[in-house]
Amino acid sequence: MSNQQIILKLSCHDQIGVVAKVSNHFAEQQFNIIESSQFEDPDTSLFFMRTVLENAGDEVSMDDIREQFTPVADTLGMRWQIHDRQAKPKVLIAVSNWGHCLNAMLNAWRNQSLPVDVVGVVSNHRIMESMTDWYGLPFHYLPVESGHKGDQEARLLQVYRDADADLLVLARYMQILSPALCDTLAGRIINIHHSFLPGFVGARPYHQAYHRGVKQIGATAHYVTADLDQGPIIEQAVERVSHANSPQELTDIGRDIEAMVLNRAVKWHAEHRVLINGVRTVVFNR
Amino acid sequence: MSNQQIILKLSCHDQIGVVAKVSNHFAEQQFNIIESSQFEDPDTSLFFMRTVLENAGDEVSMDDIREQFTPVADTLGMRWQIHDRQAKPKVLIAVSNWGHCLNAMLNAWRNQSLPVDVVGVVSNHRIMESMTDWYGLPFHYLPVESGHKGDQEARLLQVYRDADADLLVLARYMQILSPALCDTLAGRIINIHHSFLPGFVGARPYHQAYHRGVKQIGATAHYVTADLDQGPIIEQAVERVSHANSPQELTDIGRDIEAMVLNRAVKWHAEHRVLINGVRTVVFNR
Amino acid sequence: MSNQQIILKLSCHDQIGVVAKVSNHFAEQQFNIIESSQFEDPDTSLFFMRTVLENAGDEVSMDDIREQFTPVADTLGMRWQIHDRQAKPKVLIAVSNWGHCLNAMLNAWRNQSLPVDVVGVVSNHRIMESMTDWYGLPFHYLPVESGHKGDQEARLLQVYRDADADLLVLARYMQILSPALCDTLAGRIINIHHSFLPGFVGARPYHQAYHRGVKQIGATAHYVTADLDQGPIIEQAVERVSHANSPQELTDIGRDIEAMVLNRAVKWHAEHRVLINGVRTVVFNR
Amino acid sequence: MSNQQIILKLSCHDQIGVVAKVSNHFAEQQFNIIESSQFEDPDTSLFFMRTVLENAGDEVSMDDIREQFTPVADTLGMRWQIHDRQAKPKVLIAVSNWGHCLNAMLNAWRNQSLPVDVVGVVSNHRIMESMTDWYGLPFHYLPVESGHKGDQEARLLQVYRDADADLLVLARYMQILSPALCDTLAGRIINIHHSFLPGFVGARPYHQAYHRGVKQIGATAHYVTADLDQGPIIEQAVERVSHANSPQELTDIGRDIEAMVLNRAVKWHAEHRVLINGVRTVVFNR
Repeated sequence: MSNQQIILKLSCHDQIGVVAKVSNHFAEQQFNIIESSQFEDPDTSLFFMRTVLENAGDEVSMDDIREQFTPVADTLGMRWQIHDRQAKPKVLIAVSNWGHCLNAMLNAWRNQSLPVDVVGVVSNHRIMESMTDWYGLPFHYLPVESGHKGDQEARLLQVYRDADADLLVLARYMQILSPALCDTLAGRIINIHHSFLPGFVGARPYHQAYHRGVKQIGATAHYVTADLDQGPIIEQAVERVSHANSPQELTDIGRDIEAMVLNRAVKWHAEHRVLINGVRTVVFNR
Repeated sequence: MSNQQIILKLSCHDQIGVVAKVSNHFAEQQFNIIESSQFEDPDTSLFFMRTVLENAGDEVSMDDIREQFTPVADTLGMRWQIHDRQAKPKVLIAVSNWGHCLNAMLNAWRNQSLPVDVVGVVSNHRIMESMTDWYGLPFHYLPVESGHKGDQEARLLQVYRDADADLLVLARYMQILSPALCDTLAGRIINIHHSFLPGFVGARPYHQAYHRGVKQIGATAHYVTADLDQGPIIEQAVERVSHANSPQELTDIGRDIEAMVLNRAVKWHAEHRVLINGVRTVVFNR
Repeated sequence: MSNQQIILKLSCHDQIGVVAKVSNHFAEQQFNIIESSQFEDPDTSLFFMRTVLENAGDEVSMDDIREQFTPVADTLGMRWQIHDRQAKPKVLIAVSNWGHCLNAMLNAWRNQSLPVDVVGVVSNHRIMESMTDWYGLPFHYLPVESGHKGDQEARLLQVYRDADADLLVLARYMQILSPALCDTLAGRIINIHHSFLPGFVGARPYHQAYHRGVKQIGATAHYVTADLDQGPIIEQAVERVSHANSPQELTDIGRDIEAMVLNRAVKWHAEHRVLINGVRTVVFNR
Repeated sequence: MSNQQIILKLSCHDQIGVVAKVSNHFAEQQFNIIESSQFEDPDTSLFFMRTVLENAGDEVSMDDIREQFTPVADTLGMRWQIHDRQAKPKVLIAVSNWGHCLNAMLNAWRNQSLPVDVVGVVSNHRIMESMTDWYGLPFHYLPVESGHKGDQEARLLQVYRDADADLLVLARYMQILSPALCDTLAGRIINIHHSFLPGFVGARPYHQAYHRGVKQIGATAHYVTADLDQGPIIEQAVERVSHANSPQELTDIGRDIEAMVLNRAVKWHAEHRVLINGVRTVVFNR
């Protein structure tokens, strides 16, 4: 037995026999389902599926697996991906002055509790260079100069491409990306917003939360789209606060929540558990 | 020893010696502090205090206690209240078609886990009449007729006054109160909103939440002001949901949260733990 | 199209082609998968599956559906059930003196947020008779007399059978069931324990929690087995408490958690989302 | 005005006039109360108080403040401490092989969201030496040799004393301290246990949790006493898990909770919010 495991992720229009055709195909190839989830959106009749399969026969190349599956997928009109379960997505992290999310990601990566390959850190400030160095990662200093934001973004995209990255994580990167970049990397940029969206969009959400007098603060990880803070939500969490907490204390309390929510979202993305469904997500996280 | 306990609740401008003067006064009267909290808002320099005192001497009438405290309070320019800890506030509950919050309140009241005296239920529908009857409470059917909303509201206020009520709880009462009524009963109306404010103000918040694709839904209990869903927040909670939950399921899941949040807010109000601080609240709930 | 929906729930030993054979079978019968989850326990190599299917053809009787599936199931050595999604399990509720869980269940049932048919209430006390009456349900008063506990339990089982019940819910029923009854109704009794198991088994868990000084209290819904408080856990939740909360306040705070946790567990059981896996459960609740 | 702020923390037997005498004393010294909490344990009649005071006059030395308060404290038979609010407790951190709690503490310390002075790290392994170096802190390698555990502990205590430390934090330090050391540093050692106590004491709690099939896992920060995992609890939190999570995944999920709970407990201890009350704590954290 090969111990080879693969993850299939797909969506297609609702039709009879999707699961049958897919599972027949893999049973014939001697693949065994060890975890699987399916969901049909009743509003759109779109069908979503994620399956983890184990090869009970001899190891097969990923290219062959994909080639053999293509006719099945074509018949059913699918959008699909097949991944080697051992392969980790390559992640580029963008950060500005606040390093708590970066720190939590890098530590989890080092502990092997975050199944990604971090390929580098980009920043418009130098403050996180030393931490990045300690983790043995390349640090790309890309300052934003007035009137040359487009150039900076072009360099960021070049770094992403040079590193052959699969995902860009905005770990408190305090720059708004252009609609063009959001389009180019659609579904491949995850941002952490430091509020429980849709509450407190935009700047200084902890100060907004303080002035509104909310009793819990939160954080939201979402895919980035051209609409600020409006992209499909992957994960959210909250924590209790009180009247006695200053905006600075809300900021401190919130840091832990931000880091935890962002790490979960990146983990689920890396495990191919997240499928985009218009402005929403399907997250097969159990 | 009398076992008499009282609750003092006050706010005043920041000045040296507030606690000393208040605690001296009560120590001289043989009252012992058994629980107390103080907080100063650094933005406004307003000072807030709640103290539970036990009388170690002979029982004294509440009128005498208040009269004796008045000079102290006047010297310090306080807004203050002193309550008999055994006295329960009289609560009038307003409801429309959805009875889950009403049911939870009445059951908690009957179990003596909600320290209030429910004095009646008002509704613009008859659907909750039978449950109200079962609890042995008067039910006031106040239908809203087109063009006569003002009359209906006047009758509601009359019911409140006739019952000598201290608090009006909107337990999923689907009518917007007039600014005049909000003013008349300022600080004495608590509403439950079925979202985690400030997200999803207004109508059908669970449908809004579904369409936005949030990963947690919530509920918010707040004092009612003339600004819809903008009053000072007393309590909030959330519960995890997923892509697989329909708007109806969000509604079902949310019911438990609404009922729990509303009961907590009413309990804390009834225990004189909540002090209004502009558009926010101070909640001494520990 | 018939709008007929069915739920298939199965477990079997790990083998290639389970999902393929099951989904082929139903695709051939013109059934469409609208929600499905599969999980293989790596410790035991047991495979678990729950699928919701929609009939795209003419309505078929449940007996025929089951008969047609039997050969497939036999081939694969399955334990399986097929349910009409519209059919609600019949539930008998047992309660003693504390009615908060009963109240929450009955209210949710009446609101149609709990997909069960409540067929009656049994109790060793009369205190919940009036509430049961109000809901239009039969109340069976089964007092426990010293030395005749076996008789009382036999009558309880008779009530269960006469009502053709599918599930017995112990909604704060303060009697320990005999091992024989636990066996007879294995997998068909759900209990709510008022602690976060495995902490605080046995009597007076809130007092135990108070004396240990925990900072959160909880509740646990589990299937009942002959080992007290050791049965497979279905759901748990907690709520924050503080040093200032007396045992009575813990009890009050805990009531909401108990009722919520029990309702969730019963709902998931009724939707055939819970599969027993030895001393644990598989809960397909997303 | 001096901007000088102090924190008074005290406990004494219940008696009339404690708050009056304390607040009189400080009002006479021109100190203004900006935050205060009091609580009386009804079981023991012990009274607990924490007050933050601001000096409205000229700055006074901490020695003078303490000396002036001593007669008041003596009259009332208090255990008490007065701290400069700006002074940060000196913390020595002990760690073994798992660095996630250490990492979170050091990052929070560096971000100034943890109000302590970390004075060094001790470990029975070298694995965390490099991270400690990066933070510019002394690393004390204290291996445990068979039969010489007492010597190692003596060296640990020497490091603590040489560093003039106020608190020892066991941030996943996998050694059991001797009763003698627990006594010597009573109330000055905080441990993080990776379960929701009292569930799963002792070794490998995530594996225990997996085998019991719990639906939430947790972490507990507590003061260390000679009774393993039985010391007074400061803080606890939980996170939802499912049947699909392996012991390794529970471990990964639990790491975030452990780090968050430990940081909160250390923060509250450092802000003098935690008072030990026998086997429990009073935590004035709002």
